[in-house]
Amino acid sequence: MNNFPWEARPEGSKDVMWRYSQNPVIPRNAIANSNSIFNSAVVEFEGAYAGVFRCDDKCRRMNIHAGFSEDGINWKIEELPIEWVTGNTDMIHSDYKYDPRVVWIEDRYWVTWCNGYHGPTIGIGYTFDFKTFHQCENAFLPYNRNGVMFPRKVNDKYIMLSRPSDTGHTPFGDIFISQSPDMKFWGEHRHVMSPSPFEDSAWQCMKIGAGPIPIETKEGWLMIYHGVLRSCNGYVYAMGAAILDIDEPWKVKYRSQPYLLTPETQYECMGDVPNVVFPCAALHDEETGRIAVYYGAADTVTGMAFTERDELLEWIKNNSL
Amino acid sequence: MNNFPWEARPEGSKDVMWRYSQNPVIPRNAIANSNSIFNSAVVEFEGAYAGVFRCDDKCRRMNIHAGFSEDGINWKIEELPIEWVTGNTDMIHSDYKYDPRVVWIEDRYWVTWCNGYHGPTIGIGYTFDFKTFHQCENAFLPYNRNGVMFPRKVNDKYIMLSRPSDTGHTPFGDIFISQSPDMKFWGEHRHVMSPSPFEDSAWQCMKIGAGPIPIETKEGWLMIYHGVLRSCNGYVYAMGAAILDIDEPWKVKYRSQPYLLTPETQYECMGDVPNVVFPCAALHDEETGRIAVYYGAADTVTGMAFTERDELLEWIKNNSL
Amino acid sequence: MNNFPWEARPEGSKDVMWRYSQNPVIPRNAIANSNSIFNSAVVEFEGAYAGVFRCDDKCRRMNIHAGFSEDGINWKIEELPIEWVTGNTDMIHSDYKYDPRVVWIEDRYWVTWCNGYHGPTIGIGYTFDFKTFHQCENAFLPYNRNGVMFPRKVNDKYIMLSRPSDTGHTPFGDIFISQSPDMKFWGEHRHVMSPSPFEDSAWQCMKIGAGPIPIETKEGWLMIYHGVLRSCNGYVYAMGAAILDIDEPWKVKYRSQPYLLTPETQYECMGDVPNVVFPCAALHDEETGRIAVYYGAADTVTGMAFTERDELLEWIKNNSL
Amino acid sequence: MNNFPWEARPEGSKDVMWRYSQNPVIPRNAIANSNSIFNSAVVEFEGAYAGVFRCDDKCRRMNIHAGFSEDGINWKIEELPIEWVTGNTDMIHSDYKYDPRVVWIEDRYWVTWCNGYHGPTIGIGYTFDFKTFHQCENAFLPYNRNGVMFPRKVNDKYIMLSRPSDTGHTPFGDIFISQSPDMKFWGEHRHVMSPSPFEDSAWQCMKIGAGPIPIETKEGWLMIYHGVLRSCNGYVYAMGAAILDIDEPWKVKYRSQPYLLTPETQYECMGDVPNVVFPCAALHDEETGRIAVYYGAADTVTGMAFTERDELLEWIKNNSL
Amino acid sequence: MNNFPWEARPEGSKDVMWRYSQNPVIPRNAIANSNSIFNSAVVEFEGAYAGVFRCDDKCRRMNIHAGFSEDGINWKIEELPIEWVTGNTDMIHSDYKYDPRVVWIEDRYWVTWCNGYHGPTIGIGYTFDFKTFHQCENAFLPYNRNGVMFPRKVNDKYIMLSRPSDTGHTPFGDIFISQSPDMKFWGEHRHVMSPSPFEDSAWQCMKIGAGPIPIETKEGWLMIYHGVLRSCNGYVYAMGAAILDIDEPWKVKYRSQPYLLTPETQYECMGDVPNVVFPCAALHDEETGRIAVYYGAADTVTGMAFTERDELLEWIKNNSL
Amino acid sequence: MNNFPWEARPEGSKDVMWRYSQNPVIPRNAIANSNSIFNSAVVEFEGAYAGVFRCDDKCRRMNIHAGFSEDGINWKIEELPIEWVTGNTDMIHSDYKYDPRVVWIEDRYWVTWCNGYHGPTIGIGYTFDFKTFHQCENAFLPYNRNGVMFPRKVNDKYIMLSRPSDTGHTPFGDIFISQSPDMKFWGEHRHVMSPSPFEDSAWQCMKIGAGPIPIETKEGWLMIYHGVLRSCNGYVYAMGAAILDIDEPWKVKYRSQPYLLTPETQYECMGDVPNVVFPCAALHDEETGRIAVYYGAADTVTGMAFTERDELLEWIKNNSL
Repeated sequence: MNNFPWEARPEGSKDVMWRYSQNPVIPRNAIANSNSIFNSAVVEFEGAYAGVFRCDDKCRRMNIHAGFSEDGINWKIEELPIEWVTGNTDMIHSDYKYDPRVVWIEDRYWVTWCNGYHGPTIGIGYTFDFKTFHQCENAFLPYNRNGVMFPRKVNDKYIMLSRPSDTGHTPFGDIFISQSPDMKFWGEHRHVMSPSPFEDSAWQCMKIGAGPIPIETKEGWLMIYHGVLRSCNGYVYAMGAAILDIDEPWKVKYRSQPYLLTPETQYECMGDVPNVVFPCAALHDEETGRIAVYYGAADTVTGMAFTERDELLEWIKNNSL
Repeated sequence: MNNFPWEARPEGSKDVMWRYSQNPVIPRNAIANSNSIFNSAVVEFEGAYAGVFRCDDKCRRMNIHAGFSEDGINWKIEELPIEWVTGNTDMIHSDYKYDPRVVWIEDRYWVTWCNGYHGPTIGIGYTFDFKTFHQCENAFLPYNRNGVMFPRKVNDKYIMLSRPSDTGHTPFGDIFISQSPDMKFWGEHRHVMSPSPFEDSAWQCMKIGAGPIPIETKEGWLMIYHGVLRSCNGYVYAMGAAILDIDEPWKVKYRSQPYLLTPETQYECMGDVPNVVFPCAALHDEETGRIAVYYGAADTVTGMAFTERDELLEWIKNNSL
Repeated sequence: MNNFPWEARPEGSKDVMWRYSQNPVIPRNAIANSNSIFNSAVVEFEGAYAGVFRCDDKCRRMNIHAGFSEDGINWKIEELPIEWVTGNTDMIHSDYKYDPRVVWIEDRYWVTWCNGYHGPTIGIGYTFDFKTFHQCENAFLPYNRNGVMFPRKVNDKYIMLSRPSDTGHTPFGDIFISQSPDMKFWGEHRHVMSPSPFEDSAWQCMKIGAGPIPIETKEGWLMIYHGVLRSCNGYVYAMGAAILDIDEPWKVKYRSQPYLLTPETQYECMGDVPNVVFPCAALHDEETGRIAVYYGAADTVTGMAFTERDELLEWIKNNSL
Repeated sequence: MNNFPWEARPEGSKDVMWRYSQNPVIPRNAIANSNSIFNSAVVEFEGAYAGVFRCDDKCRRMNIHAGFSEDGINWKIEELPIEWVTGNTDMIHSDYKYDPRVVWIEDRYWVTWCNGYHGPTIGIGYTFDFKTFHQCENAFLPYNRNGVMFPRKVNDKYIMLSRPSDTGHTPFGDIFISQSPDMKFWGEHRHVMSPSPFEDSAWQCMKIGAGPIPIETKEGWLMIYHGVLRSCNGYVYAMGAAILDIDEPWKVKYRSQPYLLTPETQYECMGDVPNVVFPCAALHDEETGRIAVYYGAADTVTGMAFTERDELLEWIKNNSL
Repeated sequence: MNNFPWEARPEGSKDVMWRYSQNPVIPRNAIANSNSIFNSAVVEFEGAYAGVFRCDDKCRRMNIHAGFSEDGINWKIEELPIEWVTGNTDMIHSDYKYDPRVVWIEDRYWVTWCNGYHGPTIGIGYTFDFKTFHQCENAFLPYNRNGVMFPRKVNDKYIMLSRPSDTGHTPFGDIFISQSPDMKFWGEHRHVMSPSPFEDSAWQCMKIGAGPIPIETKEGWLMIYHGVLRSCNGYVYAMGAAILDIDEPWKVKYRSQPYLLTPETQYECMGDVPNVVFPCAALHDEETGRIAVYYGAADTVTGMAFTERDELLEWIKNNSL
Repeated sequence: MNNFPWEARPEGSKDVMWRYSQNPVIPRNAIANSNSIFNSAVVEFEGAYAGVFRCDDKCRRMNIHAGFSEDGINWKIEELPIEWVTGNTDMIHSDYKYDPRVVWIEDRYWVTWCNGYHGPTIGIGYTFDFKTFHQCENAFLPYNRNGVMFPRKVNDKYIMLSRPSDTGHTPFGDIFISQSPDMKFWGEHRHVMSPSPFEDSAWQCMKIGAGPIPIETKEGWLMIYHGVLRSCNGYVYAMGAAILDIDEPWKVKYRSQPYLLTPETQYECMGDVPNVVFPCAALHDEETGRIAVYYGAADTVTGMAFTERDELLEWIKNNSL
């Protein structure tokens, strides 16, 4: 794509992933009533880009808004949250919505998010046009977060990653896969990966959760994810990557021992929740192998970082737990 | 049934539920290697009774055993845990099994239990004869406990109650319903009921969970359940009952404000976990309306209590939250 | 008094306080709907005895009931909780009532209790006849428990002991005194005593709280109180005694280093909250010096214990922290 | 007043409250020995301004100092803490003093603060001249914080807001009102407001506490207050406002669902306690309706923010919970 | 020995260890001022038995007393705690002493215990006659408990097992070995064993600690120890056994997966700390292979249990983790 | 020394310790694979400087690296962690290494650090040349941190300060001294100092730990240390100093009530663990009395601060607790 968002690696840098120099791309007050705009999902849409954005308002209520961009960097976000109509169910109760992901499968854009239904669980919806949005049955019982779809069926089933949680600031968390024939009933749950031992990879030793929609590559599914370490001053969220088996994606082939990105800049270290980088989306240019990652920073603003697919795959394989 | 286990209400008692005078019916050491035998599931089977019993061994590993009885009171429990063969899946990983329930639906006995698969979740299996047992896909992602089936399909779907949990001694817990077309994929999750406010009904103010298989009555589904209060000296588990709508069982019609049974006897107040009565099964004589409840006592032994269906339904309606 | 409740010290015992051999004097089910009857307040009334009793019902809601006895041992407790009419205020909101104390001052019986008003605080009321009860302004802001009046004004002010708390199973607690010209507005708050160091007197090292109405003696005010130790298996409530200065009762003259009574019997060690003895009232026969203490056991039943005033005073002085 | 501190709303801003561009107005080291100067109380005094300032010294002991300013912005703070003489009591024990408020009532300036007397409670004192300060009886038993007087008697009684607490970093907190005939004895305690549900207004969902002296307006008492949210990285303190009934100030007429100000700047997000804005005083120009709020930032420095009374009142009414 | 304390296995029992039918052998009030007498250490002494006993007094202060018995069952315990004179140091500070062990090495009886020196650590002393006791340097820095000596030097060094702890009711705990040339300076610390995984042996999954002095056998050192499980109602202490390598005792050859003894009787399940069996000493008759274990029950009384050495060794080997 | 690192006190400052204006002297990415380089130990070496540096890599594994500098400010740190050969033991297990200190005693440089051996304890090693490093027996059982040697024997024994800990983010901590004849076996443990009461010196009220190697002065041993305060937003680490008796260094002669340095700059307040200054080394120019302190900032970078010995000693004496 001509308008693929990109910035070359900084002179002298050897990092496999690097930040966009104009970060944050979306400030906390990009719309009139927002307190913060951060964990956000972006996809290609009609030759340009669309997305679903977590916007906390000044009551600090969490909700998700649609947004559009020509270049993937400059965003126009809707002032009002998405209004949902019924999808495969009449039950579209929602106390809050946050941390969306978006993926094109077959004929439509599926949206998943953390949905407030007697606690956090995984909400599902779809849209054809980013104007009308249909809400479906929740995928799971509470308590769950970070529900992330695969971009196509595997073994003729829809596949979703998720991270079972508790009712609060969950101090544990593994990634699981669940499968569905119809996007309504879910089963065949499989464990994918656990936090790593502190001695091996401390940045991901307390909990982990899937990030962007996995990217299909020749090595397998490229899954960028977040990991959390608990210091005496709170949780620190960093970003890593793994490669899952293409046909049995609950099998982890490689998993990065070092982080890809950890909070270092002021917009990542200062804000409503200091020391957070939290990836929710990645654009992938099949041809060039360029990848642009969107991530929440300090639960306050949205940043971007770049990497090259083939180099990233090599790096994961060479730095695997 | 002639051999329905029963003992009349004690002289002078006005309690709607009363204990069996010969409790505990199963002592902690009923089999050679058991530390305790408690939360246990019983059904009618070939004119007599069979069941699945939680037996913790002397390593305090939790597992479930089959057992048989002519009269529902004197039990012969298998010395060895059930060995499972594959049911609707090859994935029958299980770190531990506990708190079983058993129900006859259509053509077979379904068993559900708390299954250790990267944390506690709801295991499912079936048997035709209590000799060969087939293990199926887990119903849900972890973390979940107290998965209890309805004894028939409702709206052409299998129905399961459960209590989403965390990884430890969960200090919260609501009852939900989930639905399945095939006992393999689950969805249409609905909230059923929450702990009550402390001021209204303190014995069930911290968490609640389903107990025996619900009994179909003219008033709706009779659901006996447990509720938990946290004192400064730990959790206290008591027993209550509710009536759910017959067609939309996620709707609570009545729910007992007082408990039915609370730990009072030495075998309920002293043991591996003091102050626990935990019902897992109930026999119901359709004709006489007699109900015999099996419950774990102090997480150590198994007790029985009796009640009469129609009187119990009246009591719930007259003492509803 | 001829009908003063009393039983001689057991043969061979050297204990300064001893249990009544027929304990518990009030069982948990003394009234139809009670789960437990324990922390209870007793006074002389019209040549016999009356009292206010904590009765938790089978919803485990906490409330207080009136009761009467000829001999202080055999009690007739009202089936229904006290119904309150307005005293010095129209604001008689009460989510729950528990742990009452009763005292005669000047012209009436004052009742204090732990009153649920947006959390626990000290409720105040009065009665002339144990039939009609008037509820007054709460003494303090939440969160407070164990409000205990002195039996006469000191320095022309009403005096109340209390134990500021938090919203739950408070793991700290000191005894304070507050003063009032009118039983409505309170001030001149003074610290009385703190938990003791673990090394000195472990049974009272986590929190302490006043028990019965203090008894005026030639040595000062005799205050029987409870102290709490936290073991790895929960709180243990024991009983001790102190002597406060007669004119400046916030000054502690002596305070028992050993306990007077600690949970030892089955009815103290087994019940809704194991390992609790909790004194709320004491009858004192001025002439003979006999003292009969009423205490809650295991938060389930009511027990009695006896001591002799002069011997107790000596013991406190000889065993003072 | 000619010297009322003021700065116009920034060009283009639509915020109902805006920060002073020269913040912080008092740096952490404004006096020789200070570690930080933050939660501070300011009033008009002899045509200029005086105040009482929380200055933590380099031992991080908390104490309060007098200070003076011609313009309300440039402050001269006394190097030494206020030395107190006895007011309505001889008992002026104080382990520490912090978070002062100051108000003129009738004939003198009353100061309230969090006073260390066997735990935090509400200290009271008065001064006529900001030179000699008299300490009075503490208003309440421990544990309490954020005691804030009304600027005149209501119903012929002194009125104080406060927030009952525990001994530590209290994770709960409601605002109550207490009343006194004489500033010495307190009673008629009434609940005013609770934290809001997380779903409705998350910034104030864990605890709330009164801020500046309420301002009398035609709509009722304008009460600016703080609310607290707990993230996985600690407490976040933001600022909101409510309108209380003029005659029955325990009745809340309106209460802002959005915050007025939340930590965003570096001096609010970085310091001894990151992510705190904590208002303690507000100047109000009756004639112009201008309001200047003084608030602690990051528990380290003092900032100012401005708003206009009538606009603020409208905003609260239009954005009420 | 003729007077070796012993009772045959009960008819029909298959347990490898069985309780003494006359338990508890030492009641809580065996001396005038005791609240409880439990974790106690016994050795052969001059043809009879002597021991050091943990006696908590009625202030619940912990201390250790000497005691004597002809038959190992009927004990005469000194009314006063041991008074210590200086051993290899002048520093014999001790806030409290508890959980003693006693062992004969070379020329004297060494006593170890949990010693209060700015927190719990391992105290060391010795006696020749159980009349005069010499206190030595603490073995380790705080925080440590369950220091247990080997009955002879190994590799020419004194050997001590211990369990590093924290300042409270430690929720973790591994067994380590430390070595000393002189009983004064300690080093060469080696890890011995950790709690087991919950799935394998839940009774010892939270913490473990050494019990009696290890017994030298042909299979290696027989170490009886305690393991702890945390239920929702507190800690449960059970007893197991392991075999350590004779020359490198930090190497575990076998370790029992099942427990040997778990709280079952009323005196083990009811008391100051319910559900505790805690072994501190074992007599071993070399000739007959009989072993008599002394253990604290419910932190209140002292019980005995019996086993046969060779059978026990076989059992450990056949039931090893 | 000509090349002693130094910068004069800033114009107008009255601080007894002041930061280097070019801080941080070591950035987080000074070597290729580092996430952070902070708690670091520096000594004079062959007319220049050498050191051992805590470098967390991008897996956030903790390890220690050698480094060299001509001027003590510009550092060349080895890309690879130190590889250890055996010292006085073959047991050189180490899960991780962090927070090193280095000291010259007699004939070699001794290194101590927090060593991962079944939990954190104090590792010991030595080098003659900063090329070959020998690892010795751990000094203590776990759990311990901040092991700091004295620069010469005292009373003919090696002396080490340490801070016994628990397995996590220890919320308590006192400084102790231990002694050894041979750097292998340790004993004669003595308590040195505890956290201070909150009311007296809040910055050091939760835990304290030794920092640089103590400096011998005419007043005694100058010990710079860290103290920790817990706010509602986490731990705050500040720096203070004490003077210990020259011959009995467990006796504290003076101890600073104010802190010397507290987190104030952006590099101290923002980073992996905000609000940390943590001193690990100090160079001392005997002749001029100049002292250069190296400290970790925000657990991310390394800073320097300067003070003058005699002035510092005076300040401690004049500001002693």
